[in-house]
Amino acid sequence: MIPVGVIGASGYTGLELIRLLERHPVFQLKVITSRDLAGKSLGESFGFQGKYRELIFEEPIPEVIAEKVKAVFLCVPAGTAQELAFFFINRGIKVVDLSADFRFKNVELYQSTYKITHRYPQLIEKAVYGLSEIFAEEIKDAELIGNPGCYPTAILLPLIPLIKGGLIEGNNIIVDAKSGTSGAGRKVETYYSFCEVNEDFKAYKVASHRHTPEMEEKLTFFAGHRVSVVFTPHLLPINRGILATIYVKYKASLESLHSYLRDFYRNTPFVEVLPLGSYPRISEVRGTNSCKISLFEDKERAQGIIISVIDNLAKGASGQAIQNLNLMFGLPEDMGLPQNPLFV
Amino acid sequence: MIPVGVIGASGYTGLELIRLLERHPVFQLKVITSRDLAGKSLGESFGFQGKYRELIFEEPIPEVIAEKVKAVFLCVPAGTAQELAFFFINRGIKVVDLSADFRFKNVELYQSTYKITHRYPQLIEKAVYGLSEIFAEEIKDAELIGNPGCYPTAILLPLIPLIKGGLIEGNNIIVDAKSGTSGAGRKVETYYSFCEVNEDFKAYKVASHRHTPEMEEKLTFFAGHRVSVVFTPHLLPINRGILATIYVKYKASLESLHSYLRDFYRNTPFVEVLPLGSYPRISEVRGTNSCKISLFEDKERAQGIIISVIDNLAKGASGQAIQNLNLMFGLPEDMGLPQNPLFV
Amino acid sequence: MIPVGVIGASGYTGLELIRLLERHPVFQLKVITSRDLAGKSLGESFGFQGKYRELIFEEPIPEVIAEKVKAVFLCVPAGTAQELAFFFINRGIKVVDLSADFRFKNVELYQSTYKITHRYPQLIEKAVYGLSEIFAEEIKDAELIGNPGCYPTAILLPLIPLIKGGLIEGNNIIVDAKSGTSGAGRKVETYYSFCEVNEDFKAYKVASHRHTPEMEEKLTFFAGHRVSVVFTPHLLPINRGILATIYVKYKASLESLHSYLRDFYRNTPFVEVLPLGSYPRISEVRGTNSCKISLFEDKERAQGIIISVIDNLAKGASGQAIQNLNLMFGLPEDMGLPQNPLFV
Amino acid sequence: MIPVGVIGASGYTGLELIRLLERHPVFQLKVITSRDLAGKSLGESFGFQGKYRELIFEEPIPEVIAEKVKAVFLCVPAGTAQELAFFFINRGIKVVDLSADFRFKNVELYQSTYKITHRYPQLIEKAVYGLSEIFAEEIKDAELIGNPGCYPTAILLPLIPLIKGGLIEGNNIIVDAKSGTSGAGRKVETYYSFCEVNEDFKAYKVASHRHTPEMEEKLTFFAGHRVSVVFTPHLLPINRGILATIYVKYKASLESLHSYLRDFYRNTPFVEVLPLGSYPRISEVRGTNSCKISLFEDKERAQGIIISVIDNLAKGASGQAIQNLNLMFGLPEDMGLPQNPLFV
Repeated sequence: MIPVGVIGASGYTGLELIRLLERHPVFQLKVITSRDLAGKSLGESFGFQGKYRELIFEEPIPEVIAEKVKAVFLCVPAGTAQELAFFFINRGIKVVDLSADFRFKNVELYQSTYKITHRYPQLIEKAVYGLSEIFAEEIKDAELIGNPGCYPTAILLPLIPLIKGGLIEGNNIIVDAKSGTSGAGRKVETYYSFCEVNEDFKAYKVASHRHTPEMEEKLTFFAGHRVSVVFTPHLLPINRGILATIYVKYKASLESLHSYLRDFYRNTPFVEVLPLGSYPRISEVRGTNSCKISLFEDKERAQGIIISVIDNLAKGASGQAIQNLNLMFGLPEDMGLPQNPLFV
Repeated sequence: MIPVGVIGASGYTGLELIRLLERHPVFQLKVITSRDLAGKSLGESFGFQGKYRELIFEEPIPEVIAEKVKAVFLCVPAGTAQELAFFFINRGIKVVDLSADFRFKNVELYQSTYKITHRYPQLIEKAVYGLSEIFAEEIKDAELIGNPGCYPTAILLPLIPLIKGGLIEGNNIIVDAKSGTSGAGRKVETYYSFCEVNEDFKAYKVASHRHTPEMEEKLTFFAGHRVSVVFTPHLLPINRGILATIYVKYKASLESLHSYLRDFYRNTPFVEVLPLGSYPRISEVRGTNSCKISLFEDKERAQGIIISVIDNLAKGASGQAIQNLNLMFGLPEDMGLPQNPLFV
Repeated sequence: MIPVGVIGASGYTGLELIRLLERHPVFQLKVITSRDLAGKSLGESFGFQGKYRELIFEEPIPEVIAEKVKAVFLCVPAGTAQELAFFFINRGIKVVDLSADFRFKNVELYQSTYKITHRYPQLIEKAVYGLSEIFAEEIKDAELIGNPGCYPTAILLPLIPLIKGGLIEGNNIIVDAKSGTSGAGRKVETYYSFCEVNEDFKAYKVASHRHTPEMEEKLTFFAGHRVSVVFTPHLLPINRGILATIYVKYKASLESLHSYLRDFYRNTPFVEVLPLGSYPRISEVRGTNSCKISLFEDKERAQGIIISVIDNLAKGASGQAIQNLNLMFGLPEDMGLPQNPLFV
Repeated sequence: MIPVGVIGASGYTGLELIRLLERHPVFQLKVITSRDLAGKSLGESFGFQGKYRELIFEEPIPEVIAEKVKAVFLCVPAGTAQELAFFFINRGIKVVDLSADFRFKNVELYQSTYKITHRYPQLIEKAVYGLSEIFAEEIKDAELIGNPGCYPTAILLPLIPLIKGGLIEGNNIIVDAKSGTSGAGRKVETYYSFCEVNEDFKAYKVASHRHTPEMEEKLTFFAGHRVSVVFTPHLLPINRGILATIYVKYKASLESLHSYLRDFYRNTPFVEVLPLGSYPRISEVRGTNSCKISLFEDKERAQGIIISVIDNLAKGASGQAIQNLNLMFGLPEDMGLPQNPLFV
């Protein structure tokens, strides 16, 4: 058994980690922290039953945590995460950081995007971007993972192989993405209150979302030239799930792109390229670590259309974080992770 | 045209008043107040178009308002409302108070229920309880209305006539009620955030909701003896609507109760007693000032079951407030009020 | 008073017509037809109260209807509508057809899109496309209106003026649209059952929706050259509303497009171009005949982004149908139509 | 490994069985049947990934199935189930029947309730009612289980121990229950279409639901005298979950009932009696096999109020079915069953 901790465990990604770790046969949850809930059990705070029901939320004191675990998941804000990562890495504890602090290779881009000074650029060099299927080999040797944003996960999984394979153009990429409300975290704002979200639908942060530079950096890396992404996020009146509709120019036939992408992901447990003509649905990945991708084409108008779905809390955050830690410890990447969805 | 004002216009009941007043042929909205939004227009704040789009939210300064209107709707918290009511009544301005300040006749009961001292008991004597169909005659002569709570409206409309007619027993009344989330107002709490309400359902304030004493006072008044109500509210993952399932002991046959209640409401525009066997649905009153009631009986177990539905923001608050002001000004009680629902 | 009829009144667009006509001061609903509900009243079938509560659904017998009305709304399938339109027009009865039968000017395009033979091409010539703000002058003189599709309404209202004004390019238009489930009508299919739509989100008919040729025909007409539209519809888990996110290339500055479009719609009661930076929300048009439009730009990536919202049953169908009949009878176009939304 | 089959696997309870069996370490799913989907895989039909993705739906041919499995779950209608049960039991195959065919001990009561002749009364004698916590000992020795209805599960778990312990009265029991829409199965009816359920709420089958006799038979058995239950089900606009609000007369103090019930369920993995004052929420059992119960009292009005929540598809059907099969094979009853909920 490998003892692990979740730092910042009372938000949605923290709770999802706990939910998923319940069934993990190797990782044993030893520490969960929350300033607000310190002293309370998981059972009394959130009604969790099962083996972690009596686990008590602790104050986040790094020295104390370091004594108890071999790996930590950081579910704290950008800026705070880098401090904790520095502390734990120096003590030989593996870190999967779910914040943005180690997603970027370009420090300036991180700083201008998040308006935060990065104090540990040397750690950025060591960090691996935790898009599991794409960086599996690097992740296996990593000590520190910058776990990808939820939108970038849904969008890069189809785009990186196609860019790398030279099968799509690197400009004119338009991503129209829709996310369930849990993507905003456990925010207490009128904007996210039930009556304001239910029966409504709206775009937000048009041309200004912080996931855009993250996606562009990765795509540019694989393309070998500057790739730009027009990105429009929308807020869905559902709890979980992201669907991204991606408009790209194909450089080969639909059929050849489809067969290329199927081959690329053939031996991965979580990414599925659907048969041509199939429509991915958010309900088919609810609660799972899966990503489903379908390729379409408007032949008359020479437009490629790619649709990708994930569960933003699972493959888009906590599920992928566990997948990464599996890889870091040499375990099967799908260990403990659900593949059958809560279909309704 | 009669100039009116809405004090505290940026909450859900205030906005519903504005929505409904758009089509009122006599009441002209002259004043809307909101501390937070003072200086902004209705159009820019909430996207309202139509004739009040350019109306500007004002600071709530009673002296200024009193110059402009002949009647006010008070959508402010209990405790604050009584002060404003006192001010306006003294200047000859009619008041419909949507808070609890003038719902009770028993001052002590009000005070122990709301933990607020009532400074104007003499006004309580003058105030009329604004359950429009029941107190229509008194309302016509009133200067000050205590507009009923949303739950009491749904529950008293079927129960008062039956109690009055001696057709149900006054003890063993159990009310299991379910309300849409707008009933909580525009609260900014985790409890009311989208992800916490959506796909969930829960009871709250079991045996301790403040609408219980309000209902019991009115039923006791009509019964001539103490009536008690066991009341369990629940939170529905919908925006609007209340459905109350009421368990009572019938003192006559289902058919005779049904025909009595149909007769009672025969000439009212908003209360409809459905044919036996019909099920009221919240969707059939959405956006309207209607109340639909159906009577059932479990004959084998000698249990009467009454189901009643309203739109909590309309008949349960702002619609009934306008209905009352119509009566106070000698207008047809249904003037300007919608009867056809937003069926989907 | 002008007597009117709704043919096919038991579907969602028929019911919405009835809901809206309740408050119309001139059009008097005299006939509603439904094969399934013939003999039943509106009140018993759908719980409508108000002035049409006792109106009885009739069998759709054109000869009988023609005796009673001066105008009809056709809410029947494409193919059936043309037969009824021919019948009524020949008797001097004005027709607003909510099907696709008279939306196209190009008969072949209609026939290949809908796989239906058009038997009355001469009527197509007389018919006017009922996008009210754009064709207001022609509509005033029309006897027969082809009421636009819901998606085309949301999309053409922003695009036609900009195409006409030469302010956007006519190729590379991508429309990513999302519609509430009532857009599918009252279909009884597993696909539209509650558990399959709720908490889900999915695209459908990618590159194959029948509203694409409709939009392209209109845009091409105003551009004077072939305009093509890549169109991806999605199904939202809400009852009402369409939000279209439109990607176009601007040929002038954002500010000049914005001011052009504001000017274009300045004197219209229903179309509102929002201030720069504002986000249209579906909830702000729920139940109204409004369309709200906002223009954005990703300047770094030279991409124009236009967002438009309507209520698919109101401005996208029945509301616009009444607006058109208002125009046809020389009435103010906003007569009887709501502008304040059911904000929650 | 024990090979098992799911007969009638394409409905919601069948799919939930498959979802849950994915993680079961002993039961191996060998057969899934569906007339409609015969020949198709689970992956292509429902997007399931994981180890059963390639499993093919078969025609339901009992002789073929009997060769492959040691136990079957029957997810077929009442009436059909008894035939299959008879067939499989005779071949030594254990049966968990999710229909009503083996829930009753009184054959006449079954027949009058379901309007179906029972052709195997001798099997009824052998069958055990699968309310796992209550009949655990009998289930361990059973060959045939009548898996309880979803409502009875939520309601009997709190009531049976209290009735047995003589702590509540056996008359005047009123149950006001609310169920998510998946409880109706995958029905294709307008009544269950998205737009008709969403934003609506309604009661149904008042005083006539078929789960009433089932509950009364079990309670009467434990009470030793006739117990009657007034039962009102309602349809919630959510996918999963039941909340039952139960009104009973306590025969001892709230505190003593609470401590009695806590003791009763102390060593069970799935039933949790919450601390006094806590409110059970449907979200806290979503996707799990748990039941959460809370006891309240309106002391002033001498009314006991018990609230119980389950996931209707899991503990209310498929989860409990697996729990029962675990017991029948001498495995730990919680083997393979989730306890941590999909909290959002």
